[in-house]
Amino acid sequence: MKLERLEKYAELIVKCGLNVQKGQEIIIRCGLDQPEFVAMVVEECYRCGAERVKVEWSYMPVSKIHLNYKSLETLSEVTDIEKAEWERKVDKLSCLLWLDSDDPDGLNGTDSEKISKANMARYPIIKPYRDKLDNRYQWCIAAVPGKEWAIKIYPELTAEQAVEKLWEDILYCSRVDEDPIAAWDKHNENLAKRCKFLNDYKFETLEYKSSTGTDFRVGLNTKGLFLGGGERTLGSNIYFNANIPSEEVFTSPMRGIADGKVVATKPLSYQGKLIENFWLRFEKGKVVELFAERNQDLLEKMVSMDEGASYLGECALIAYDSPINNTGVLFYNTLFDENASCHLALGRGFNNCLENYENYSVEECEKLGVNSSMIHVDFMIGSKDMSIVGITKDGKRIQIFKDGNWAI
Amino acid sequence: MKLERLEKYAELIVKCGLNVQKGQEIIIRCGLDQPEFVAMVVEECYRCGAERVKVEWSYMPVSKIHLNYKSLETLSEVTDIEKAEWERKVDKLSCLLWLDSDDPDGLNGTDSEKISKANMARYPIIKPYRDKLDNRYQWCIAAVPGKEWAIKIYPELTAEQAVEKLWEDILYCSRVDEDPIAAWDKHNENLAKRCKFLNDYKFETLEYKSSTGTDFRVGLNTKGLFLGGGERTLGSNIYFNANIPSEEVFTSPMRGIADGKVVATKPLSYQGKLIENFWLRFEKGKVVELFAERNQDLLEKMVSMDEGASYLGECALIAYDSPINNTGVLFYNTLFDENASCHLALGRGFNNCLENYENYSVEECEKLGVNSSMIHVDFMIGSKDMSIVGITKDGKRIQIFKDGNWAI
Repeated sequence: MKLERLEKYAELIVKCGLNVQKGQEIIIRCGLDQPEFVAMVVEECYRCGAERVKVEWSYMPVSKIHLNYKSLETLSEVTDIEKAEWERKVDKLSCLLWLDSDDPDGLNGTDSEKISKANMARYPIIKPYRDKLDNRYQWCIAAVPGKEWAIKIYPELTAEQAVEKLWEDILYCSRVDEDPIAAWDKHNENLAKRCKFLNDYKFETLEYKSSTGTDFRVGLNTKGLFLGGGERTLGSNIYFNANIPSEEVFTSPMRGIADGKVVATKPLSYQGKLIENFWLRFEKGKVVELFAERNQDLLEKMVSMDEGASYLGECALIAYDSPINNTGVLFYNTLFDENASCHLALGRGFNNCLENYENYSVEECEKLGVNSSMIHVDFMIGSKDMSIVGITKDGKRIQIFKDGNWAI
Repeated sequence: MKLERLEKYAELIVKCGLNVQKGQEIIIRCGLDQPEFVAMVVEECYRCGAERVKVEWSYMPVSKIHLNYKSLETLSEVTDIEKAEWERKVDKLSCLLWLDSDDPDGLNGTDSEKISKANMARYPIIKPYRDKLDNRYQWCIAAVPGKEWAIKIYPELTAEQAVEKLWEDILYCSRVDEDPIAAWDKHNENLAKRCKFLNDYKFETLEYKSSTGTDFRVGLNTKGLFLGGGERTLGSNIYFNANIPSEEVFTSPMRGIADGKVVATKPLSYQGKLIENFWLRFEKGKVVELFAERNQDLLEKMVSMDEGASYLGECALIAYDSPINNTGVLFYNTLFDENASCHLALGRGFNNCLENYENYSVEECEKLGVNSSMIHVDFMIGSKDMSIVGITKDGKRIQIFKDGNWAI
């Protein structure tokens, strides 16, 4: 990949993704796959005035060894070092950047039950830090190609060719062309228009139908908002883009109102494993039945992680004719696949999808119907013939999606 | 490199280098150059019963960006996260493994003065932790080839060939043959015999002479011991090998007694830069004059880091015909070059070179003549015709080295 194009991508991530401010601290989490690109991002952060940048490298084969050999007790411990890390994050409101390059199958063969139990044990200790941080700091997830990931997508190519092709895909989907920052400004404007249209109607219900078997209704929050594109931090009011790429307009639905069956249209990568060909059936907002052709046990574990894991936290709308979907590539990666298709998420909802959410405590947001959970896992349900109808309080039906695409 | 030979090397490092015990915590510091080998070492640690292994990856180009952009104030800060890391080390007596693969020129172009000032500011905060840890935990430095390092040694080869050749060198020097652990047992036995010989004489002075211009006398400690090869942790009494490879027999000299000129016979890699063709002149134990053809300013900064930086902390004896020197390779890396040649070190001495050192506090060791400093930097003075004579209290002169090699 040409150096100049990578530099534009690094600049996009730092200026438009994180929007790094003078004096800020930045944490970058990444694999070992593209260290030269990571160095570009680090330097760009400092150029934008960052005071301290910390790179937390990880290597999936080593992560897998840890998960296999560590006892449940050791995995469950939140060490004083980790607590100090969380405290600094809360204190400095450090920006967080994930440069995802993980092998979608990288954790195959690990014990999901042990990992889930450890996460459950850690959650009560971590939650108070998370609650203090929620919506107050800039974060961004973007991607760089990893060798194993690229080979998974393009098994017919050599490793080097596959990585180069995946770079192309990532940069294309992320709008890294002549002037990526101008392209993102325009894109954010379009997403904001769609949100305004949806929010003006104040829909009570969304009704999904598709030939895949999806036949589903979900209740929306009366105080709820659709969001999309850039957002602002609470307090410091800094505009940032949490996902590069991002095509979605989304909201947090009303906890406890969801009925019917949703059929996934893409595999779900969870804990380094792929859950394939699955469906879920909801009653009164809760998953009451599920099926998966592959890794059903993992899906079951996922929805039973805690009380909130079987309720919905997000409904996201993306045209079937999205740039990502138009690549025709199945990325086996949520960042891309979720932005290629209408999706739902099980688990934690977004407090900032409530109007004037800054006036409510975390507990009040929960009471107002935003789901709470240790997990937040997207899964794709969009299809070529998907229909979504919005139903207002007075029974008016507005076609929002028709034949997989926006009808508005 | 053949997988089987690398597995033997990993086993040697974990069993013979660190000697990992059941339930221990291990910290591995390494570059991004040989992740597959790091994974082997991590797995071997767990197989030996480690409870938790933490890999701290680093990437020199990013380290360089940090050093260039961070303010002195930011570089000087010891964060609460670092303090928590030190506290855990003290609490758990975590084993520490460095897998060195650094580019010897990797930090060229950084500001040595800023780095030195930052290290000086950090030292008083870190020293109490270090003092508590001293001699109580297992540690090991070993090497793996990095691309830039290999190219520096073998500029005539392709990067891939150079890395392969450097693997060969590292494994040869580290005695990774049919049965490396048996080879190390035998090697440690030989080193122990040499130490016994030297310790039985209780030399008061070592006198160095060489055609390179070295003409130098250094006073030894009356309570001093020569050590070499494996050593034992204080308290837990675990036998480990701190350097792989290691050829040296060494002691900490008496602070304040050293006179004459020592001429370096190999370049010194310090803070990622090479100090070349240099000499130092001592009076009453202290450096009073110095010269270097390249990076003299860095050498000056080094000896003035603190009071102890201009005094000696180590005298090490290695035959000119050592396996490492016989490769004929200049490694530009202290671990190898120091084990290829007689050397001295400026800065911190070794308390465990005092007889019954476990009965003395850190302060008492200093009073007994062990030098204290924030630095400990080896530099090579061994040559083909080096002569070293040991002089006993009653004036007896024993030829220890003749024509560069052991005379005993």
